[in-house]
Amino acid sequence: MALFEGLSAFPITPTDQDGVVDEAALARLVDRLAEAGVDSIGLLGSTGTYAYLTRDARRRAVEIGLKAADGRCAVMVGIGALRTDEAVCLGRDARAAGAHGVLLAPMSYTPLTDDEAAQHFMTVASEVGLPLCIYNNPTTTHFTFNDALLARLSQTPHIVAVKNPAPVRDRAAPDISALRALAAPGFSLGYSGDWRAVEALIAGGDAWYSVLGGLFPKPCVEIVEAVKRGDVEAARRLDAKLQPLWELFQAFSSLRVIYAAANLLGLSAAQPPRPILPLPGPARDRVAAVLATLALT
Amino acid sequence: MALFEGLSAFPITPTDQDGVVDEAALARLVDRLAEAGVDSIGLLGSTGTYAYLTRDARRRAVEIGLKAADGRCAVMVGIGALRTDEAVCLGRDARAAGAHGVLLAPMSYTPLTDDEAAQHFMTVASEVGLPLCIYNNPTTTHFTFNDALLARLSQTPHIVAVKNPAPVRDRAAPDISALRALAAPGFSLGYSGDWRAVEALIAGGDAWYSVLGGLFPKPCVEIVEAVKRGDVEAARRLDAKLQPLWELFQAFSSLRVIYAAANLLGLSAAQPPRPILPLPGPARDRVAAVLATLALT
Repeated sequence: MALFEGLSAFPITPTDQDGVVDEAALARLVDRLAEAGVDSIGLLGSTGTYAYLTRDARRRAVEIGLKAADGRCAVMVGIGALRTDEAVCLGRDARAAGAHGVLLAPMSYTPLTDDEAAQHFMTVASEVGLPLCIYNNPTTTHFTFNDALLARLSQTPHIVAVKNPAPVRDRAAPDISALRALAAPGFSLGYSGDWRAVEALIAGGDAWYSVLGGLFPKPCVEIVEAVKRGDVEAARRLDAKLQPLWELFQAFSSLRVIYAAANLLGLSAAQPPRPILPLPGPARDRVAAVLATLALT
Repeated sequence: MALFEGLSAFPITPTDQDGVVDEAALARLVDRLAEAGVDSIGLLGSTGTYAYLTRDARRRAVEIGLKAADGRCAVMVGIGALRTDEAVCLGRDARAAGAHGVLLAPMSYTPLTDDEAAQHFMTVASEVGLPLCIYNNPTTTHFTFNDALLARLSQTPHIVAVKNPAPVRDRAAPDISALRALAAPGFSLGYSGDWRAVEALIAGGDAWYSVLGGLFPKPCVEIVEAVKRGDVEAARRLDAKLQPLWELFQAFSSLRVIYAAANLLGLSAAQPPRPILPLPGPARDRVAAVLATLALT
């Protein structure tokens, strides 16, 4: 199965206000993704609010998600935690549940040195034993991987992929070439930040880790298929159509916008965990207007 | 008791590698502080690695610390958490154990808006009901309070103090005046960042929240007493003597340096929680040399 290539869709994890997972809503979201033909599903990514959920809730979400996916696509699981031993436990939980791979973000409170992050990743990779994707997301983790550190980790058994923030369009091709030249052969270079990710795919990226794809998989599958068959023009045209959504993602964060969209669609009444607040009314109205214009359902 | 004024000392929370609190070592550290006459003790601050400990471990640390302080000084407790409901639970635990006040940092993963942080603080203050200090530490929390937001929160019942990063020397007086002009009367303005905090005290700050004071209270008590009696020259002279330590704090982080110092003194064999690593040998040697030169015991 395609774990770290093509379209990887990241759904929200619907919970009640106490952080208890809504089984029916999560199963519905995951089924929708598998049905649309995404290459993989990323449970408990940042959009899946992994950082805000207990170990029990996370184990439950993985069980529900794997059952709902039902072998139709690969499933990776976010196992980030502030403590190394906790990330190991979360990774073992994911493995025991049958996950195909894990996604590890270097969550931090005390800022980490490169050596500390490296030690953390090597320990977790070795103890968990599943294919591991380095989740490089400086905006949330407050740790930034440079290419040299990624290249060093790409030599480690089980560490087979990175999910990088997509660079600005003009930097996509040179950045990908530079990292490919340093990383182990076959190391997967994937990108997130939906508003820039399509250009990174076109420039040769292996995977698009998508928030939009976690709720509206169809337009994202279409784009990835266009890139795969070499139809760059079609991919860019489809991407351009989604520009109003990318603007909302950048203005209000993709997390808040996608919760509002899931609410508007009636797929889940869940809200993000407090202190994160639902979008205020006027912003929600803008999301509704864009969904209507794009005829996204 | 002086909760948010004078010298507030922040000890480490010694634990084993699984995060279980070492009762004897923590009691020893707290006794040392109370004995030296600090105005207050801040349990489970950033230096107390609150972010890395379970609710049970944090409750245990508070019980041990309060028992060891034995009413000799005020005790505040760090109750930061990513979730609002969790911070409320931690605050109630601290209140039930007999803490005098709480310190709340806006820990974040998804970056918070000002309204989200405000909502978080107002909810926790109201539900916990103890005097609350806003812990403004952008380096670890990745949220920055501006003066307008601090002033807004200073109007909220129970929110009575802020622990701000100390500004550079030339900004101390104007920054303190500007915030005083906006904040509620009597709102306490305290400072952390040991290498700059003495100048903030001299410029009129109410409290010094000190990492060094959490292991070596005596020189810090001396400085605070000099400031209190208006002897700025003596305060600056004592502060200048500590400059070699301030340089180590800035180079390696006060957390890593203070763990190394506690190890070197034989007060605790604990290491910071992984992924944070102990200082490497050469850095540890520099700490040892500075402690020897300053005759700190």
